[in-house]
Amino acid sequence: MEISVTSDILRADFTIGYLGAGQLARMSAVQAFRYGMRIGVYTNRSSDEPVEFMTPFSIKGGFDDVDKLSAFAAKCDIVTLENEFLDSVVLKKVRDQSETPMYPSPETFHQIENKQIEKETFEKAGIPVTPYQLVKDLDDISEFADQYGWPLMLKSSKGGYDGYGNVTVENPDEASQAMKELGAHKGHDIVAESFIEFQKELAVQVARNEHDTVVYTCCETIQEDHINKAVVTPAPIDPKLRNRAEELAAAATEAIDGRGLFAFEFFLTDDNDILLNESAPRPHNSGHYSIEGCITSQFENHVRAVSGLPLGSTKLRSPSVVMINLLGDHQRDARVDHARDAMAAHDAHLHIYGKLDSKVGRKMGHYTMLGDDLDETYKHALELADAIEI
Amino acid sequence: MEISVTSDILRADFTIGYLGAGQLARMSAVQAFRYGMRIGVYTNRSSDEPVEFMTPFSIKGGFDDVDKLSAFAAKCDIVTLENEFLDSVVLKKVRDQSETPMYPSPETFHQIENKQIEKETFEKAGIPVTPYQLVKDLDDISEFADQYGWPLMLKSSKGGYDGYGNVTVENPDEASQAMKELGAHKGHDIVAESFIEFQKELAVQVARNEHDTVVYTCCETIQEDHINKAVVTPAPIDPKLRNRAEELAAAATEAIDGRGLFAFEFFLTDDNDILLNESAPRPHNSGHYSIEGCITSQFENHVRAVSGLPLGSTKLRSPSVVMINLLGDHQRDARVDHARDAMAAHDAHLHIYGKLDSKVGRKMGHYTMLGDDLDETYKHALELADAIEI
Repeated sequence: MEISVTSDILRADFTIGYLGAGQLARMSAVQAFRYGMRIGVYTNRSSDEPVEFMTPFSIKGGFDDVDKLSAFAAKCDIVTLENEFLDSVVLKKVRDQSETPMYPSPETFHQIENKQIEKETFEKAGIPVTPYQLVKDLDDISEFADQYGWPLMLKSSKGGYDGYGNVTVENPDEASQAMKELGAHKGHDIVAESFIEFQKELAVQVARNEHDTVVYTCCETIQEDHINKAVVTPAPIDPKLRNRAEELAAAATEAIDGRGLFAFEFFLTDDNDILLNESAPRPHNSGHYSIEGCITSQFENHVRAVSGLPLGSTKLRSPSVVMINLLGDHQRDARVDHARDAMAAHDAHLHIYGKLDSKVGRKMGHYTMLGDDLDETYKHALELADAIEI
Repeated sequence: MEISVTSDILRADFTIGYLGAGQLARMSAVQAFRYGMRIGVYTNRSSDEPVEFMTPFSIKGGFDDVDKLSAFAAKCDIVTLENEFLDSVVLKKVRDQSETPMYPSPETFHQIENKQIEKETFEKAGIPVTPYQLVKDLDDISEFADQYGWPLMLKSSKGGYDGYGNVTVENPDEASQAMKELGAHKGHDIVAESFIEFQKELAVQVARNEHDTVVYTCCETIQEDHINKAVVTPAPIDPKLRNRAEELAAAATEAIDGRGLFAFEFFLTDDNDILLNESAPRPHNSGHYSIEGCITSQFENHVRAVSGLPLGSTKLRSPSVVMINLLGDHQRDARVDHARDAMAAHDAHLHIYGKLDSKVGRKMGHYTMLGDDLDETYKHALELADAIEI
């Protein structure tokens, strides 16, 4: 199906269907609204999801229910996804049955849908990745350890996020325990990765459609307990290294013929090598800073890319942009306390995701600040974000 | 009812109820979403309205149906309005019956709800207004003309917008005809205004809550056939005159104890006097440029002000910001053609309102461009906007 803004893409009843109804779909939907589009939501959660309050068109069902998914897709002009808990075979059937275009395509999704295939895909494209091996048992792990040493990472091949599904192990005993935790006995594929000593973790977002590719400035992601705590942009490293990460991200998107918004996380090693660590076929937490920090946000370029619209500039609006994730502090009905100072600060922007329950460590919102000096802006933003209680 | 961010204003199920479901509610709702809020919509239109696709909570009813309005309001945490086709007596009853706070308050709304009261209110507050007189018949008009001369403006006291409800008349014959058109024989109040020779038309938006007032940069509004065609910011006049307009706008908001977002239109006369022409108790077309052009848009400050949140900076993001209204070129199903170049231009932002039908002259969207030089930016934006066909 040919989609072009010169035909009727920007018509008022054009509907983007989201598979998933969390904060990523929410922030993307807001950008669809600015183009007069409607949104539909398909979710497998039984509880009220943030996006369901943003449309009258919301369907609940399993992500393996081809018929239900296809019926949903058939009511949309285009379907996109907001998470990776999906199966490319199912997606392909849904697209074929509904005849509704889907971006990223099932073919793109297939190439990164589990860690094993993802690594192979990017390695083939000449993009440096961390050494890895599919491991079935302790023997495989020991063999991998002989080559790359302990500690090593064991990762669930599919469905990991925010550190869940990832375990660092120091020795065979810990490895044995981790294999159980990761579900090896249930037949889950496990990938061993060598543990990389890195200076920094970097991320780059890329938007790509059939004509163009635009790349966001390489940022640094700062983790705490395996959860992304903050993102600072531009990454405070040699600009040549930023360029290198940006080039790799563009090449990786090209390698999977990606259409939509893609995010890539890299390790910057002690030797200044840049290794691809993870990819995501969707807007990503590392790019939330772009909502105010860039001329065109990752969410707007996602909507543009999947809808066949021209891509927008990724240029930064200020020399420095800092994003702090706001994690739940309590188990309670969602509520934001002590945010007054954060909201009143200059060029600082609070986002709350509309989740109904706070849980300790749950991503409930984020806080972005634009400034001149990166260190000062980071310090100021952190101080104000820390005061917020959710 | 005390509302404060330090209590539970920013909770996920906080609902803003809009009376009206057009593009102003739409753009405001998008800002409510960023704070995790929900929206409700009450509309008197039978056709599908832009905002109805943005929420599952949408009610149809008359704007005089106190019970239905109150039932709607009771399901919201706060109620706000997006047009002036309302009656302060009804609004007061709705607030009292529902016990839901309403901003702007019915008391504020009352003071500007028709042109006669509006002029009196601001005149009393020491704000210069165009000379005016409530006129019941041709004798009244002739008397007014004797004092201020022909031509003069006749305005429907309530419900005018975009030049509708306004007629310029050159002589008694035209006045007689206009009185009929404006519904004098049906008992509609008509206000005569002296025709002001002006250099420019200016506008200023003001956000105000119980603690603070923030004022946007004075812009120039450019009309074509009585419809706002473009807004250029800052208004290309002596900065002292801009300051004067901004001060008058703040004073006018104070005079009506406004809480929310208010917009004021002024004439800059040939003698460099600034006279208040019109006011609106809501976000306004003249402030659409602020979505990308300012650190905090008029819509975001509207949501903040009515919800008891701290107000955000109104500072411009670039030396010049230009907004062009996109009016319907055709009578057809809503569709946007030839927008590719406009979308691809640097720091240019297209907004489409999601109306289902294009009509010639109907406001269907707008186009904003940020730049350094005002004249160049205006010229460039106009060229790209002119190519768009809706």
